[in-house]
Amino acid sequence: MFRNREMIITLKLDFFKTLGVNIDLAVEAHDIIRGEIGKEIPGVVVDREKYENSSVTIVKIVEEQAEQMMGKPRGTYITIDAPSLRNNNRLSQKEVVEVLADKLASLFDLPEKAEVLVVGLGNWHATPDALGPRVIDQSMVTRHLHKYTPEELKGGMRSVSAIAPGVLGITGIETAEIIKGVVEKIKPELLIVVDSLAAGSVDRIATTIQIADTGISPGSGIGGNRAGINRDSMGVPVIAIGIPTVVNAAVIANVTVEHFLEQLKEKPMLSQIYKNLRPDFMQQVIDEVLQPFTGNLMVTPKEIDTLILDTSKIVAGGISLALHPAITLEEYNLYLN
Amino acid sequence: MFRNREMIITLKLDFFKTLGVNIDLAVEAHDIIRGEIGKEIPGVVVDREKYENSSVTIVKIVEEQAEQMMGKPRGTYITIDAPSLRNNNRLSQKEVVEVLADKLASLFDLPEKAEVLVVGLGNWHATPDALGPRVIDQSMVTRHLHKYTPEELKGGMRSVSAIAPGVLGITGIETAEIIKGVVEKIKPELLIVVDSLAAGSVDRIATTIQIADTGISPGSGIGGNRAGINRDSMGVPVIAIGIPTVVNAAVIANVTVEHFLEQLKEKPMLSQIYKNLRPDFMQQVIDEVLQPFTGNLMVTPKEIDTLILDTSKIVAGGISLALHPAITLEEYNLYLN
Amino acid sequence: MFRNREMIITLKLDFFKTLGVNIDLAVEAHDIIRGEIGKEIPGVVVDREKYENSSVTIVKIVEEQAEQMMGKPRGTYITIDAPSLRNNNRLSQKEVVEVLADKLASLFDLPEKAEVLVVGLGNWHATPDALGPRVIDQSMVTRHLHKYTPEELKGGMRSVSAIAPGVLGITGIETAEIIKGVVEKIKPELLIVVDSLAAGSVDRIATTIQIADTGISPGSGIGGNRAGINRDSMGVPVIAIGIPTVVNAAVIANVTVEHFLEQLKEKPMLSQIYKNLRPDFMQQVIDEVLQPFTGNLMVTPKEIDTLILDTSKIVAGGISLALHPAITLEEYNLYLN
Amino acid sequence: MFRNREMIITLKLDFFKTLGVNIDLAVEAHDIIRGEIGKEIPGVVVDREKYENSSVTIVKIVEEQAEQMMGKPRGTYITIDAPSLRNNNRLSQKEVVEVLADKLASLFDLPEKAEVLVVGLGNWHATPDALGPRVIDQSMVTRHLHKYTPEELKGGMRSVSAIAPGVLGITGIETAEIIKGVVEKIKPELLIVVDSLAAGSVDRIATTIQIADTGISPGSGIGGNRAGINRDSMGVPVIAIGIPTVVNAAVIANVTVEHFLEQLKEKPMLSQIYKNLRPDFMQQVIDEVLQPFTGNLMVTPKEIDTLILDTSKIVAGGISLALHPAITLEEYNLYLN
Repeated sequence: MFRNREMIITLKLDFFKTLGVNIDLAVEAHDIIRGEIGKEIPGVVVDREKYENSSVTIVKIVEEQAEQMMGKPRGTYITIDAPSLRNNNRLSQKEVVEVLADKLASLFDLPEKAEVLVVGLGNWHATPDALGPRVIDQSMVTRHLHKYTPEELKGGMRSVSAIAPGVLGITGIETAEIIKGVVEKIKPELLIVVDSLAAGSVDRIATTIQIADTGISPGSGIGGNRAGINRDSMGVPVIAIGIPTVVNAAVIANVTVEHFLEQLKEKPMLSQIYKNLRPDFMQQVIDEVLQPFTGNLMVTPKEIDTLILDTSKIVAGGISLALHPAITLEEYNLYLN
Repeated sequence: MFRNREMIITLKLDFFKTLGVNIDLAVEAHDIIRGEIGKEIPGVVVDREKYENSSVTIVKIVEEQAEQMMGKPRGTYITIDAPSLRNNNRLSQKEVVEVLADKLASLFDLPEKAEVLVVGLGNWHATPDALGPRVIDQSMVTRHLHKYTPEELKGGMRSVSAIAPGVLGITGIETAEIIKGVVEKIKPELLIVVDSLAAGSVDRIATTIQIADTGISPGSGIGGNRAGINRDSMGVPVIAIGIPTVVNAAVIANVTVEHFLEQLKEKPMLSQIYKNLRPDFMQQVIDEVLQPFTGNLMVTPKEIDTLILDTSKIVAGGISLALHPAITLEEYNLYLN
Repeated sequence: MFRNREMIITLKLDFFKTLGVNIDLAVEAHDIIRGEIGKEIPGVVVDREKYENSSVTIVKIVEEQAEQMMGKPRGTYITIDAPSLRNNNRLSQKEVVEVLADKLASLFDLPEKAEVLVVGLGNWHATPDALGPRVIDQSMVTRHLHKYTPEELKGGMRSVSAIAPGVLGITGIETAEIIKGVVEKIKPELLIVVDSLAAGSVDRIATTIQIADTGISPGSGIGGNRAGINRDSMGVPVIAIGIPTVVNAAVIANVTVEHFLEQLKEKPMLSQIYKNLRPDFMQQVIDEVLQPFTGNLMVTPKEIDTLILDTSKIVAGGISLALHPAITLEEYNLYLN
Repeated sequence: MFRNREMIITLKLDFFKTLGVNIDLAVEAHDIIRGEIGKEIPGVVVDREKYENSSVTIVKIVEEQAEQMMGKPRGTYITIDAPSLRNNNRLSQKEVVEVLADKLASLFDLPEKAEVLVVGLGNWHATPDALGPRVIDQSMVTRHLHKYTPEELKGGMRSVSAIAPGVLGITGIETAEIIKGVVEKIKPELLIVVDSLAAGSVDRIATTIQIADTGISPGSGIGGNRAGINRDSMGVPVIAIGIPTVVNAAVIANVTVEHFLEQLKEKPMLSQIYKNLRPDFMQQVIDEVLQPFTGNLMVTPKEIDTLILDTSKIVAGGISLALHPAITLEEYNLYLN
């Protein structure tokens, strides 16, 4: 019997758009389209690595045509999957911090003196959207110490700063504008942006990490309302780290029906009926179930508060190890306490 | 076209049980069963009242047979519905505080000197389950002042105390045991227990309040793991105030399929197919979509943090006005700030 | 017998500097210096207004010489004092919101279309320093709505945005740099900066509000480590709103000794002894009492968490009324809920 | 030159009482009285142990006369001092967890099957008083799992439950009443009560831990308003773990004057003057400095939020190791994450 993650393959990418749902994870978009077209996507290269407690999928979008099919800009999208993170497994956490550090470092090539700005997107006051700001709180920030540190002691410690710019509803300012303002002041050579994502399947919540050298695409994130934060808009390279913390309830509703029909597919009449439905039929069904919230209903595990806290430590740890090669995980833990 | 709330009528009560979902709201259980049996339920009396910004439904379960059909003990279940609460409408909030105070007071008959204990169930650290503890924080507690207050000044102010006993996973103690211990010490004449509920429809989240003179039934609440807290177990009358803060994701999944089929019901083949499905077919579909969480996935609006805060003030206000007849809403607001 | 607030008059301004304590309130600096020199300070104009539950002192530093004596730049410093705020008196809160709105508005002269940026300084995670960020959360932000609002509906509502930039220890970036970056992007015509202050006397905590058209002076704020945020550094007018939330423990220690000696002053020998002490004697005594923290020990009332919450609502209300002339206090409360 | 901690020796125990300040730490009371009487206190036995990063002082009050002099009931008071905790030193933290576990275990003699209840006193919403509730959140609670665990797997894991009963101002119920109610229900063989204390010297904040087999004395704790929680009132042995998180501002004020005079003591006139002061003179000076708060002003380091969080992990770790002999510190960390 097929697992829920694979099930999403049968869905149409266009359909998600009619639901107002963005597919934030390249690996999910890839699976959907490959399902739709029934073969490998031209212009996309996929690579896989296996670790003890986690696995890594590297999706490279290398051609313009693939860019359009995937609905994502050309670039490298690295996904780390570690289902055991959900069980708060410390060995697994340690491994993921190290794999994250390693994969993150593979996406930049910076001198030791480089200045790096880490940005935590999202809203402190909405639990599943608070991951970005929490990562900022736990990151190893050094920029203010750097100017007082003798040159010979700086070895392996980059100058890192970090901000959590808030969300449009609270600041009244597009987050990208705030970040651009800070970037122009402190002129970092790299921007790392951390964000909560919406996934297409609940088993990805707090167990999947995506690292992309394309930055944040417009319309991504929880609720799909982030502005684009990328090399074009910022003038410096941007690496985005995204972690699914919710699934849109509209996706759950839709996947259930798909799954239901999938189970019935040997009944020829039914698939006939389904094919003849008006194209907006399914959306109308979902609207009725989810009104008056529709696009704003999130599915989260009951223990989301704890999952966000644990995951933020892992992400902050991975970033700190990648940026400060002289620091070991043990030293980071000492710093963080 | 029918609205989502009515849709639930077509569902089978038994089916929810197989999903591990408890129907916490009597008004929803009533609608489901009336749908199943296609007529009024014998031994249940339903009454309705209409206010400017809210409506009240009073379900009285008066006979033993009805008790079994409804899966709820005999007693009075008052439901206040105020969809405009979702828009943070202050006039609506004021009205609901007063209707709640009035309906709550209709369920007890206490002397002015009566001692009342308010209990906030739930977990401080899990946003949708934090409603009960938050209500405790905002309730007008007087017991510790009462002994120092001259008799002539006490008029209209009852002796009220309040506890938030925590949850089993944190304390290791059944919540009912903690409450019973405190009840035996301070010997209140009435217990008011506040809890977060799971609803059958998202439009009830933070807009419906249920007041029941039967207390808390075993298995109710978010996650369905509360122990029974009622006159039998406590030895004093217990009134439960419950507010839906989530919908179980399994319910959303199921309702969507039901709704989907409902729309197709003129197609005779389909309903034939559906009738022939194995009884556990739908549960298996849902399990696959929601694994590895299944019963622990909650659907909440993105703004749940704010909704919980606002609703806790309304409930604490209603309780305070009902218990302290000398207090006006304005004075409560002054107290609460 | 003299009250504690007047007592500070006998202190030497220089002495505070040796303690590493900045006198944030102009009204306190004024009282200290007037005490030192025994007459009105040349180049300083003081005005007073009396309201039902509050009083206002306006200190204008108009000459360069006064600037040096006061240790504060030329400009207008308006102080609102309302001791009844401490008792959570709602009438008093309402009056202070309105006086604050009125006095704040008296310091700017902006067209209706002006863009205003409100900045909340301080650290979310340190209770007495969290006032600024909390004010941001409760301010009436409109900039993101303004572009979608028809011109005829904008009447009396300015375009307001708000940020809480964090603190150097968490971001690694000077707060002034972050603000400057945002100012250059959104080009406001006025900056309003909210900050927690250290007072010279505990009875000012959460009962005094200072509004200054000179912005934030370098070295002010809790702990005395803010960078200057003023017209010079920002390129636009800056109004600072500061509220004492702590008293430095070194001030308490010093004031106690001063007060002790004051009481003994009829004993001629003692004042003789005191005069002959080495100048750093008192600082050494205080260092020993407060080590290993010295300058980082804060004196706060036990109920500081509640005081910060209440005060942040008052300040956010005053700012919102001043910036949006079309809004009444009642409408603001509706907005804020 | 003498350090601040020794300075307190010169103070009079009676004087603290006139200030409304309780001396929570037996080791401080001991030092004060020994200072007053100029010799060892009859009926008190003091023992000291030295570890790498910490030191332990064991004060045993063994005779009734000593009980009266010390103002504390007969019993064993173990104080762990580890100044390096303030620097967030991880080796020091590890050592203190282990010394705490060891010393705590030395105060009870329980069978493996014994039931233990841990109680966290204090107020969630007031940072320096939140230590007790935070410890509860991080304790290894097993009672609810115990009945499902096969006998052979329980080895070395006791049945532990934990509650945070809140404070009188929020519940309206004496904390001791709530605890007694729970004790009568679950009948533990030992009660461990964790509380925030007020110290006599700032260098003890978050670096000193007192373990006492006498339970909580009436009038102790921050603000001095705890009810007695001891074997007499509870009917089972009670061990109290107390950690200073504040110093009363009145103590700082007084110690400063004492210290000031100490420095001047070679001037004979002055000590003459001081001796002739009215007994309430010093109290009146302090009242004036600290009004309108007097007894409710707390001195805390700016970083108190972080100190409370770190210390709560240490205390919860020490308790968990002491109660579950089969658990190593590493396993506790895995549990806690």
